[in-house]
Amino acid sequence: MCADARIAVTVDSKAAVSLLKELREVTADEHGAQRLAWTPMWLKAREWFLSKLSDLPVEHHYDAAGNSWTTLSGASEKTLILGSHLDSVPNGGWLDGCLGVVAALSVLRRISHEFDGKPPVTIRLVDWADEEGARFGRSLFGSSAFAGTHSIEADRSRTDANGIHLEDALAQCGVAIDRIGDAQQERANASSYLELHIEQGPVLEQMALPLAAVLGTKGVERHAITFHGQEAHSGSTPMTARRDALAAAAKLALEIRTIAKKHPDAVCTMGSVKTYPGIVTAVVGRCEATLDQRDLDAGVLATMYREAQEKSVKFAEEEGCTVEWSRIWNIAPEPFHPTLIELCEEVIRETTGASHRMPSGPLHDAAEVSRAGIPTVMMFVQSLKGISHNRIEDTREDHLALAIAAFDRLASKTIDWIRAS
Amino acid sequence: MCADARIAVTVDSKAAVSLLKELREVTADEHGAQRLAWTPMWLKAREWFLSKLSDLPVEHHYDAAGNSWTTLSGASEKTLILGSHLDSVPNGGWLDGCLGVVAALSVLRRISHEFDGKPPVTIRLVDWADEEGARFGRSLFGSSAFAGTHSIEADRSRTDANGIHLEDALAQCGVAIDRIGDAQQERANASSYLELHIEQGPVLEQMALPLAAVLGTKGVERHAITFHGQEAHSGSTPMTARRDALAAAAKLALEIRTIAKKHPDAVCTMGSVKTYPGIVTAVVGRCEATLDQRDLDAGVLATMYREAQEKSVKFAEEEGCTVEWSRIWNIAPEPFHPTLIELCEEVIRETTGASHRMPSGPLHDAAEVSRAGIPTVMMFVQSLKGISHNRIEDTREDHLALAIAAFDRLASKTIDWIRAS
Repeated sequence: MCADARIAVTVDSKAAVSLLKELREVTADEHGAQRLAWTPMWLKAREWFLSKLSDLPVEHHYDAAGNSWTTLSGASEKTLILGSHLDSVPNGGWLDGCLGVVAALSVLRRISHEFDGKPPVTIRLVDWADEEGARFGRSLFGSSAFAGTHSIEADRSRTDANGIHLEDALAQCGVAIDRIGDAQQERANASSYLELHIEQGPVLEQMALPLAAVLGTKGVERHAITFHGQEAHSGSTPMTARRDALAAAAKLALEIRTIAKKHPDAVCTMGSVKTYPGIVTAVVGRCEATLDQRDLDAGVLATMYREAQEKSVKFAEEEGCTVEWSRIWNIAPEPFHPTLIELCEEVIRETTGASHRMPSGPLHDAAEVSRAGIPTVMMFVQSLKGISHNRIEDTREDHLALAIAAFDRLASKTIDWIRAS
Repeated sequence: MCADARIAVTVDSKAAVSLLKELREVTADEHGAQRLAWTPMWLKAREWFLSKLSDLPVEHHYDAAGNSWTTLSGASEKTLILGSHLDSVPNGGWLDGCLGVVAALSVLRRISHEFDGKPPVTIRLVDWADEEGARFGRSLFGSSAFAGTHSIEADRSRTDANGIHLEDALAQCGVAIDRIGDAQQERANASSYLELHIEQGPVLEQMALPLAAVLGTKGVERHAITFHGQEAHSGSTPMTARRDALAAAAKLALEIRTIAKKHPDAVCTMGSVKTYPGIVTAVVGRCEATLDQRDLDAGVLATMYREAQEKSVKFAEEEGCTVEWSRIWNIAPEPFHPTLIELCEEVIRETTGASHRMPSGPLHDAAEVSRAGIPTVMMFVQSLKGISHNRIEDTREDHLALAIAAFDRLASKTIDWIRAS
């Protein structure tokens, strides 16, 4: 096969969009996608995926953590991994996760055709197990097992809303909880990892851009903050005699915005406030709030965390209250690979005429792959209204086509980069 | 009996405090007072009260609304009413309500002894039915029936936590719900009403004063306020793209304090805040808050209500949200009778050497009596730590003795005023 003939083979974006719609037919109801990991509907989605491999010269297996691997062996053992996840939150959207799997399948198919089933490097497609963590509260399950960052001891006792243990749900899907670390074997020869995902935010729509190169995933500091004041009668307690825990929390709810806005991409969110006794006739004696802070720069994240703590103490003092902090969870920022970011931006510019770089606020499996030392980048495609994890999640079909075309170009350039390195 | 002999008869404060302790023994458990209206324990408290009348030349009956009337007929049909309530909230204190009943009984006993069972005016003691409204959410039940301000249609469908209807609970205590308006007959010849109550707030303790004359009960505006923004992902939504309903509510939580502090006795309280979806990873899309505003001046109250509304609209606009208000309940201020306030202050000064005037933030039966056009005043005695509706509610025993002595003097001066008018 001559070089010209290979160039003529293009990725079939239209077929990819049809596949996404077919998957929606098979695994969604009137409330949205129902591909909750470790449930029959998720297994059905994975069977559907397998059925699309029958005409390809690939090997398929599930690893010890339940990740689904499809391998197209190449002339070199050096491996380009393309991946995302088929699982969804309950009542989820039609694109979150599965767009990346379907796009990867389309690219793998294009490469297989172009190189007559034997590309210059090995191409693998991974469908990570349980990215969302929606059933057991542990996201990035499969990719963290792959990366070796998963501490099963911390998760063994997790149960779902019906009291079913994580361990038992995994066993029903053929995964032995004590062996998930064996998924690290899949890292052999991994040279690069690429993931296409919807943005899940409003940035690209506001900029009227279809695509962006992702700089990395932001680090997260997530804390529970409790202000203790004094419950008091709303009628008999003068304003000057109050120790109002809500007032201290309200000051912090506003202050975290000032703290975040000092940095271009930082976000700080108070997502939950609970008041006790929480009745109309009592000054709030105890106020429980949550704080979620994110930035791509570890120094910025640490500064924001320290500032929020300092301000919370100041506000507590001003209101005659005390404050205590309890860490819910945190994770370090994970910057992606600079060369792959360059390549990603390049293909976006070539495909759409404009490019943009942005960090990802949400976490993705790509962060775990990158943490394992494998050069990684993600590409984002615009989300309409910035809405995700909801059945109205959507992206324009012409943008989906651009995304799949650009992602395909990125795969080609990454193959060249792997070969040259 | 000569005048000198009469002067020698004094109210027995010590006996009154013993009675309060006896009542606590009979009707409280380790969690506090359990004299919830329309329950067996409340009926037990009322039986206990009746047992204390056996040596007095009085008539006793329950009126159509379940109010308990004890009458010592005088030379004149003109009547001085002394009253309060025996019912308590669940896990209540040992003084809220019953102090006023026991003090009134002590004063009635003193007057009966002093005038050999025939005082110059008729003295009546009333124990109002269900002041607290703790079981069915309708406070001032008996006194509002007496005042004719009770709209039974609005309350007929009320149920308690176990689904028992107000109507059935009343019937079990011998009260026919459709006849409670007949309690208005008890207003005949009523010339004045006096009520002693614990302050239930921290003002007198902070001023190191045992007693105060009460200027009236504050009016109340009570509203549910809902801010509607846009639920959004805490990681993917830039600070500038948010419509954060919590931020708007937080601004209002702080602003109501500024609004209240323009007026010396006004209070504004945000007692409850609820966030939706209320999870750590989402910007708050909807925030429900409550507002309770009180002042003795109707104009001040109206101004505070208008200012809070205006500011809520401003804050909603600033945050890209909308706001809606829903009135939970409101009541007009009820100023007490100027002459009786004067007399009350006079006896406090005579008894303790210092006096103070203050409005009542909490509502009391006295407000309903005053609303019925009967000259009314209340006296407050200091509460320790301002705590009430709690088993740790307390007042120093020397302050209780001063209160009962001053209240007794107030009764004498009021009798003189009634006779002179």
